[in-house]
Amino acid sequence: MTAPVTIYVCTTCRRAEDPAEAPRAGARLHAAVAEAANDATDVAVVGVECLSVCKRPVTIGFTAAGKWTYVYGDFVPETAAEGILAAARQYAVAPEGLIPWRERPDSLKKGVVARIPPIKPV
Amino acid sequence: MTAPVTIYVCTTCRRAEDPAEAPRAGARLHAAVAEAANDATDVAVVGVECLSVCKRPVTIGFTAAGKWTYVYGDFVPETAAEGILAAARQYAVAPEGLIPWRERPDSLKKGVVARIPPIKPV
Repeated sequence: MTAPVTIYVCTTCRRAEDPAEAPRAGARLHAAVAEAANDATDVAVVGVECLSVCKRPVTIGFTAAGKWTYVYGDFVPETAAEGILAAARQYAVAPEGLIPWRERPDSLKKGVVARIPPIKPV
Repeated sequence: MTAPVTIYVCTTCRRAEDPAEAPRAGARLHAAVAEAANDATDVAVVGVECLSVCKRPVTIGFTAAGKWTYVYGDFVPETAAEGILAAARQYAVAPEGLIPWRERPDSLKKGVVARIPPIKPV
């Protein structure tokens, strides 16, 4: 089964306020987004070991066939999960994944790290 | 024809020292990398309108089937083309695109912006 949209969450991301012993912010956000998505079949939540952004924890990504892949940073695990899921669903219905600017939540406007063009079919 | 490795170059990137009238740094780097690659069949050089990194011009990317996609920034159009091409060829032969750290040129070590896991076959 392949969900239409994949949400990547960097499980290695650590935030400055993370206690040394606790699970890292990235791992906590991954768990929170997975819980928010619950049994959804329209998104797959995938933990990734390092998205190489590091300076903007927690980092996430959206990808889907035929769409631009986006990387976003600066998410807080305690509060961001529902917003990420809602944004992933905006992305899912946006042609090529290009959510109109005025419809983007602030977290995507301010948090964008990079984007990659759609992979062309071979 | 699909080359094994695609080099993306952001043609929208502008560097602080760019004169207002001249082609932007991104467009110049795109031209330089395309010229360096010349008739190579092992890389495709693709200009992209904005990779959304903006603060780290010029931004480029490497992508290939089954490999992590990487985004790098901070390239200077006048001098970077040959190094980018050489790095793309290191990437081409590296399993999953993971060039061993000690073999990475400084431009990739310092310039990394983000990476995205290999797209799984559907």
